[in-house]
Amino acid sequence: MRATTIHGTRDIRVSTVPDPTIEEPTDAIVRILAGCICGSDLWPYRGENPVTAGDTIGHECVGLVEEVGADVRSFQVGDFVVVPFDHCDNTCPHCEFGAQNACDNLGFTESGQAEYTRVNQAEGSMVKTDGVPDPSLLPSVLTISDVMPTGWHAAVSAGVREGGTAVVVGDGAVGLCGVLAAKVLGAETIIAMSRHEPRQQIARKFGATHIVAERGDAGVEAIKEITGGVGADAVLECVGTDDAMKSAFQIARPGSTVGFVGAPHGVELPVRRMFVKNIGLAGGMAPTRKYMPELLAMVLDGTIEPGLVFDLTLPLDQVADGYRAMDERRAIKVLIEP
Amino acid sequence: MRATTIHGTRDIRVSTVPDPTIEEPTDAIVRILAGCICGSDLWPYRGENPVTAGDTIGHECVGLVEEVGADVRSFQVGDFVVVPFDHCDNTCPHCEFGAQNACDNLGFTESGQAEYTRVNQAEGSMVKTDGVPDPSLLPSVLTISDVMPTGWHAAVSAGVREGGTAVVVGDGAVGLCGVLAAKVLGAETIIAMSRHEPRQQIARKFGATHIVAERGDAGVEAIKEITGGVGADAVLECVGTDDAMKSAFQIARPGSTVGFVGAPHGVELPVRRMFVKNIGLAGGMAPTRKYMPELLAMVLDGTIEPGLVFDLTLPLDQVADGYRAMDERRAIKVLIEP
Repeated sequence: MRATTIHGTRDIRVSTVPDPTIEEPTDAIVRILAGCICGSDLWPYRGENPVTAGDTIGHECVGLVEEVGADVRSFQVGDFVVVPFDHCDNTCPHCEFGAQNACDNLGFTESGQAEYTRVNQAEGSMVKTDGVPDPSLLPSVLTISDVMPTGWHAAVSAGVREGGTAVVVGDGAVGLCGVLAAKVLGAETIIAMSRHEPRQQIARKFGATHIVAERGDAGVEAIKEITGGVGADAVLECVGTDDAMKSAFQIARPGSTVGFVGAPHGVELPVRRMFVKNIGLAGGMAPTRKYMPELLAMVLDGTIEPGLVFDLTLPLDQVADGYRAMDERRAIKVLIEP
Repeated sequence: MRATTIHGTRDIRVSTVPDPTIEEPTDAIVRILAGCICGSDLWPYRGENPVTAGDTIGHECVGLVEEVGADVRSFQVGDFVVVPFDHCDNTCPHCEFGAQNACDNLGFTESGQAEYTRVNQAEGSMVKTDGVPDPSLLPSVLTISDVMPTGWHAAVSAGVREGGTAVVVGDGAVGLCGVLAAKVLGAETIIAMSRHEPRQQIARKFGATHIVAERGDAGVEAIKEITGGVGADAVLECVGTDDAMKSAFQIARPGSTVGFVGAPHGVELPVRRMFVKNIGLAGGMAPTRKYMPELLAMVLDGTIEPGLVFDLTLPLDQVADGYRAMDERRAIKVLIEP
């Protein structure tokens, strides 16, 4: 099949690789109708994470079931499914506790920007719809495989509450989905930290009541002013850098929680401040499957339209252009059509 | 007055210092009936925190109101009061949010091992009883000024739940109060990590169902075995060292929270594990005043007897012996009678 592969820093290609096959009776093969590029794909792209040249890349997709293993009973060939980036059996003690991200049989989508992908724990992981969703809904449905549940996880972990104040650090697609999540969860004041006009516009559409363009100390000061000097009731850290995390802990009011979903790179947590001010940290890699049914229902009934984060759609052949556009912040998130 | 003062590493004296006086209309002066030595007093005692020679030390006490400032309306001379170590107005936005530890008018007891002490925000901080409690209750009432609310805060922050499994790292008086808190909050399995027979006995009295004497990796393994390989639903970190914190995060199951109350010394948080496994951190310096009414009521009606953590009582003149006994782990917690 044709699949996106990474060969080094800023070296993305479309290669012919072996088709994925059923290896375990719990596997399924999905023919991808739409995939996309994740902010976290930029870490290896930029050389911040090590890569093995020729590896496939991409972990978000939706598509049609092509083949199922013997133990997969709830899905049939032809079903339209959303594939979470983190696969889980959804029955082990960790899944039952709501930590599907740490499933005893955890797996990951390994070729989400390709023609096909394998799902390791298909029965527990995939969520299907009645028929193929209307094309107008497809981008939003695609977000349910990672970016929307991840933004949602940040908001839930930060303890966003009805009537409260939420600040979102990071204006990538995850941060924007965090704004949307905070809105759905009832936050009254939603502050998006963003310096980019197109992202600010989406943040406002998603429910942001304030935009703070400043960063670092100036950004913290701006938020202190909006919150009457108190700080935010909930902070969503959607970047993963030390600067973003430090800002998050400066913005969070005493007794609140920073919900973090940006994969940490070089982060040192301010344990002293956390102790003295009682600012907690919660979240991490999203237990995607936990949130999928609820979020998918909201997409299908039109309550939310997270697909607005896609501002560029490219055919698989041009996937390298998609990476470039996201790397240079010319695109927020790129949808890839195999 | 006579007061405990610190002059350097392991140099504790009883000195004559000026009586505390009303400096602000929100102040009160309390004549101390009982004070005690806190595990955190051992940090400066051992030279781990800097000290100014001659400073008074001690921050836990109960006593009788000796004098009140003009703005203190709910207390009269002669009232028996519990003084939280962290003073708060209990009306500012942080207090209303439940973060009394970060009150806009935060103050601290500065001479808890002495004849008198000043309370900075007396109206918001102190809690009184109807008359002087029976002498048999006094040790337990004294714990309400710090150690019991701190153990309680660890359990609440860790999210101890009915029927769950709680592990307490640290067998000091705070850790033992954490065991008691976990019991009251309904944990079914309560594992105390302790190598010391007298502390193990109190832990069992307080509700521990298991004792793990091993530390480090062996301790983690023992807890994995007790929890069927899953890890604990809630972990109370009641030490403050890097080793204790690392163990806490190894013991905590994915999706759970470490509640920490040990003042961090040299702690580096395992942010990668926190992210991948979704293990949160919450807690910090206790918002003592928030918990005092509830805990004091439980002491007075006999529901809990946290005063069992005191295994040595000394007159003020012998306070230095008390520090030695705690430093050498010959005593769990020392009550000081002025």
